[in-house]
Amino acid sequence: MISARLNKKDIKQLLKEKKYDDLRKSFACTDPADVADLLDELDSEELEQVFSILDNEMASEVIVEMDQDEIEDIVENMLPSKLAGMIQEMAPDDAADFLKEFDANEQNQILHLLSPTKKKELKLLAKYDEDSAGGLMTPEFCAVSSDATVEQAINAMAAADFSDPVTTVFSVDREGRLNGSINISELISKQGKALIKDVVDSRPVFATVDEDGSVVAHKVRKYDLLVIPVVDKDQKLLGRITIDDIIDFIDEEAAEDMARMSGAPDIEHKEFSPLAIVRLRLPWLLITMFTGTIVSFIVQKIMDLPSAGYLAAFVPVILGMGGNTGMQATAVTVRSIALGEIEFSSLAGVFCREIMVGAIMGSVCGMLIAGVVCVNISLFSATAVLPAFLAKLVLVVGISMFSGMTFAAFTGTILPIVLHRFKVDPAVASGPFVSTSNDLSASLIYLGMCYWLLNL
Amino acid sequence: MISARLNKKDIKQLLKEKKYDDLRKSFACTDPADVADLLDELDSEELEQVFSILDNEMASEVIVEMDQDEIEDIVENMLPSKLAGMIQEMAPDDAADFLKEFDANEQNQILHLLSPTKKKELKLLAKYDEDSAGGLMTPEFCAVSSDATVEQAINAMAAADFSDPVTTVFSVDREGRLNGSINISELISKQGKALIKDVVDSRPVFATVDEDGSVVAHKVRKYDLLVIPVVDKDQKLLGRITIDDIIDFIDEEAAEDMARMSGAPDIEHKEFSPLAIVRLRLPWLLITMFTGTIVSFIVQKIMDLPSAGYLAAFVPVILGMGGNTGMQATAVTVRSIALGEIEFSSLAGVFCREIMVGAIMGSVCGMLIAGVVCVNISLFSATAVLPAFLAKLVLVVGISMFSGMTFAAFTGTILPIVLHRFKVDPAVASGPFVSTSNDLSASLIYLGMCYWLLNL
Repeated sequence: MISARLNKKDIKQLLKEKKYDDLRKSFACTDPADVADLLDELDSEELEQVFSILDNEMASEVIVEMDQDEIEDIVENMLPSKLAGMIQEMAPDDAADFLKEFDANEQNQILHLLSPTKKKELKLLAKYDEDSAGGLMTPEFCAVSSDATVEQAINAMAAADFSDPVTTVFSVDREGRLNGSINISELISKQGKALIKDVVDSRPVFATVDEDGSVVAHKVRKYDLLVIPVVDKDQKLLGRITIDDIIDFIDEEAAEDMARMSGAPDIEHKEFSPLAIVRLRLPWLLITMFTGTIVSFIVQKIMDLPSAGYLAAFVPVILGMGGNTGMQATAVTVRSIALGEIEFSSLAGVFCREIMVGAIMGSVCGMLIAGVVCVNISLFSATAVLPAFLAKLVLVVGISMFSGMTFAAFTGTILPIVLHRFKVDPAVASGPFVSTSNDLSASLIYLGMCYWLLNL
Repeated sequence: MISARLNKKDIKQLLKEKKYDDLRKSFACTDPADVADLLDELDSEELEQVFSILDNEMASEVIVEMDQDEIEDIVENMLPSKLAGMIQEMAPDDAADFLKEFDANEQNQILHLLSPTKKKELKLLAKYDEDSAGGLMTPEFCAVSSDATVEQAINAMAAADFSDPVTTVFSVDREGRLNGSINISELISKQGKALIKDVVDSRPVFATVDEDGSVVAHKVRKYDLLVIPVVDKDQKLLGRITIDDIIDFIDEEAAEDMARMSGAPDIEHKEFSPLAIVRLRLPWLLITMFTGTIVSFIVQKIMDLPSAGYLAAFVPVILGMGGNTGMQATAVTVRSIALGEIEFSSLAGVFCREIMVGAIMGSVCGMLIAGVVCVNISLFSATAVLPAFLAKLVLVVGISMFSGMTFAAFTGTILPIVLHRFKVDPAVASGPFVSTSNDLSASLIYLGMCYWLLNL
């Protein structure tokens, strides 16, 4: 439902005039996600006012759609009883995530006010890591005995009143172990008297409760699932992960990958305190700065050489081009790994391709920069430069550019792959590692070329 | 179904011994996605052999799960009749994507061999842009008149035999215009005699056929939909987009964003020719190289100053830190825009935060590098340096580092936002733009500081 009825100004007006009934009515025929959008320009006082007039069900639907920082504003002055009332209405997985906003003391206060069932559910979910299958699942699912009939399964499903729509019915044995699954649309097309065990897919794809979210997401994508059942180590069915939560997970992972690549691993926290962000980003910057100072020592070595002025001037562009080439290779490799596209069998291919790309681009840029050196010295040099020496300078800069870029393509590809092998998230470490190793190698190559070709 | 039965070696063995029946049987009880995985180490000849023994249905299910480059290998020597047979079995959206692999001439040959219905469907889908709602949709959907009863709707659904499972029934008026939608699980819980128009959500979220895929994906995420109906400008229902296609779209977009940020916009093409990749990546590198040569002229200016050796040595680290800070800010901003998190109302907040972060990190790094300059000169200087001059050098380097990083945070945030305003995809252009503008500004700041503080 896309609301054309209310706009942000109307809400402020209605709140001012205390026309609470009108407001409630307008909200009732608007999708909670749209209501959350409409509220995002209200100040904390107005937000408090809105939530005080909404019933628990609507308040809970709206609040799960809001941004982290808005939620913090709203719940700050809310009574535990109101909080508990809202949590009672939420889907268990949303409720568990919401509860994590509070400190241990507040959590206990709220839990105390919940129904015993809800309390038990939430305590169970709180055990699992946020990014594991257990942390993503909801314990609400529709399961029938494999000896039931299709008709019984349909009735069970029709009676289920869950926050997330049911798309799949699972079958279990007497011990509650998962032994089949069937889409509702397929279930409905079967004879009512048929037995469930004869119609289900008897080897359903499932996730184990402590499996990593990215593994689960990969399964859901690969097998085009709408929902994936979650089982414990004895194959007992514990819950299901619905596809909307998988989408959110994939999106957050992609955002994190991108942020981590640049050494800014803070998107997921949506922290608004600059100091908290600095704490997350600065360590990566300091690593690169450490390498940077080593590079400056290397440049100082170059400064002792003849024509040091020209040689030093080209350090930034050689380093920069190596860095850019490396980042291109890394971005492509990290995403290929994240999408599960890189397998051991295809590594050699990716590898050769990236190095060839690096070498081709290095040749082009190497020749161009050699041209720049020529023109630069011929036009701007204060003192006459011997042609033989000019040729050497041109060679030093050109070959360094070429080697630096080719080597950068090499490290940019190999590093994420090696990190992945050793179970380090390639996105976390690749960016800073690649840029520091490229800076170092490019400047060492350059220094080496200077010594070698200028015959010192 | 996760297959524990077959492994890659078995397949090679069975092919060698020509035990085709065994192979077919094993494939039949394995998920097509797993079969595609199992085939990825076969050479082209073996692949040809496999596809010659599979019937059209299974061949079509397997081939849509394979990688682009493998598909090219397989179809190269396939007869048009076999290709048409496979396409006939595919879901219309998969078939349309598959058909795009061939040139116009081959496409006509294949189309000619298809059933009239399939041909019409494919010609319709071919009209739409790949990344639009029309390009993502399948024309198979389950729609009933809004005057129908719940029972009739359930029967219509049970009779539907689509490649993608039905999760939602749409209702339409006499002209075929969308006027409602309902999840099957909800539909089943209703009375059989109730009228559809009384039970559906009468203001369903929909996509228009030429809407951009990212807008559609945003709606699906926001409203937690399993499927989104696609309508033309008269609201006539044309098809539906299922969530698995939305997931693939989101994943590809995220991969593209990341690649584009680094100036390597080639992931989507999965091209294996290094030259093709070079053509895509090199332009961005040349832009940064152009700036790089300007920077080298600026460095040459610095070389005319006293203590040029020390000053030039710190250029790479100052430029590098500016670049890294800028990329962190850009990565965060680009993803926030892609996720629809940045709205005009919150811009000021993001902006202030990023600049504060940049300034704090700049202060820390500026002080550290000032310390490095002190130690460096005190320990390694060949000639004595006056304390007053040393203090100036320390100030030049420290303040340049601080200003460069703060300014980089500024450009890293503002550039993606401005590009987004002017409808340029911020990911495409931000990376190279940010890095070049930061290199230029940092080196100019440094040169300015040198002139000003060293009193020249």
